[in-house]
Amino acid sequence: MRPYVFVNVATSADGKISTRERRQVRISGKNDFSRVDCLKAGSDAVMVGIGTVLADDPSLTVKSPELKAERKGKGLEEHPVRVVVDSRLRIPSDASVLHKGEGKRIIACAASAGAGRIQELKKIATVVECGEEEVDLTCLLEKLRGMGIRRLMVEGGGTLIWSLLRAGLVDQLTCYVGNIIIGGKEAPTLADGPGFVRESDFARLELVGLERMDDGVLLTWNISHTSLSG
Amino acid sequence: MRPYVFVNVATSADGKISTRERRQVRISGKNDFSRVDCLKAGSDAVMVGIGTVLADDPSLTVKSPELKAERKGKGLEEHPVRVVVDSRLRIPSDASVLHKGEGKRIIACAASAGAGRIQELKKIATVVECGEEEVDLTCLLEKLRGMGIRRLMVEGGGTLIWSLLRAGLVDQLTCYVGNIIIGGKEAPTLADGPGFVRESDFARLELVGLERMDDGVLLTWNISHTSLSG
Repeated sequence: MRPYVFVNVATSADGKISTRERRQVRISGKNDFSRVDCLKAGSDAVMVGIGTVLADDPSLTVKSPELKAERKGKGLEEHPVRVVVDSRLRIPSDASVLHKGEGKRIIACAASAGAGRIQELKKIATVVECGEEEVDLTCLLEKLRGMGIRRLMVEGGGTLIWSLLRAGLVDQLTCYVGNIIIGGKEAPTLADGPGFVRESDFARLELVGLERMDDGVLLTWNISHTSLSG
Repeated sequence: MRPYVFVNVATSADGKISTRERRQVRISGKNDFSRVDCLKAGSDAVMVGIGTVLADDPSLTVKSPELKAERKGKGLEEHPVRVVVDSRLRIPSDASVLHKGEGKRIIACAASAGAGRIQELKKIATVVECGEEEVDLTCLLEKLRGMGIRRLMVEGGGTLIWSLLRAGLVDQLTCYVGNIIIGGKEAPTLADGPGFVRESDFARLELVGLERMDDGVLLTWNISHTSLSG
């Protein structure tokens, strides 16, 4: 049993999620911004990799006052649970994601992060240990499901998304393609890591949505897994 | 004066044009194949970078017998002029692009390629020299226009497309986005090279077409240049 996992990202027309310096870039417009805020408000948890925390220091909070009020009205916290995948616990203790807004925080690490660092972070967040050297994502998702998380939104970065895709743990990918070219062979894309080499290993998607939005386009892809449960 | 320049590529849903091993991959289906063949038949020349020749050994020929016959009927060669951008003249003398099918071949190089190698290649193709260390693309496009090329199709790879975009030499980009994930931080994208760093430098596009095709989607972007002529 694992949550329903959907990835939401914005890329340039050439497939980049930021510049080679990993500087955050405005790719979409206000309609897409509202759409993403709404997706977030409708999720039980929002997850990012440590690279994204170190590069952008995002808070991963819901922005709209109406959506926050709506969550409160349902007896929920204003913001979904925030999850950071951080094998070696490199997260700075003053990271925005740990301090901005109410709601639970979960940091997922591997055993190799070390007992001392784990104890330290337990003072400010829930620390979940899965895997020896690297976070075992299948194990993590099972634990998150056990904690009541049924809908998990993943916002990046390219390494975490790649690992989830490779492990067959993504159910839907929404990708906003913006009207810019960033370029750069070292600029991150939505699926980095080592990548697939054999055509038979490629993740196969089904295009279920196609819509103009702001000055770009929103593509929605489904990924079917025979073994999905939850 | 330069030709009208349009880039046509196919990428995975994560923006890759091939695997990290640069192995050619089937991204689109037969409708897209026909569309591309048609675009090619309607062009005066088709251009690629040397990286693409070394990785894929493409012939860049028109495939459809009907389209070839149509070109002949108009008094044209069966295939458009084939242009390879190859600063240091690394092209193998048995490359398919130099031998398959009738029609003119142009190899663009820089002066640094050396007089000996230039003389050698002149036996099998038209060699155009532009620039000292690297091919000066603005100069090359002017020369191509002077040779009667008004519509130039660019098929890759990511380094050549990046250089053309950076120099403001692209008028239209058609990108077929296929229903696969290739992944890989080292897999090539449609615009590699160093990439832009400042947001104010990004190439800005206008979405002029959006259509489902085969199992993916075809995006058409225009790039306006106040100085375009030709």
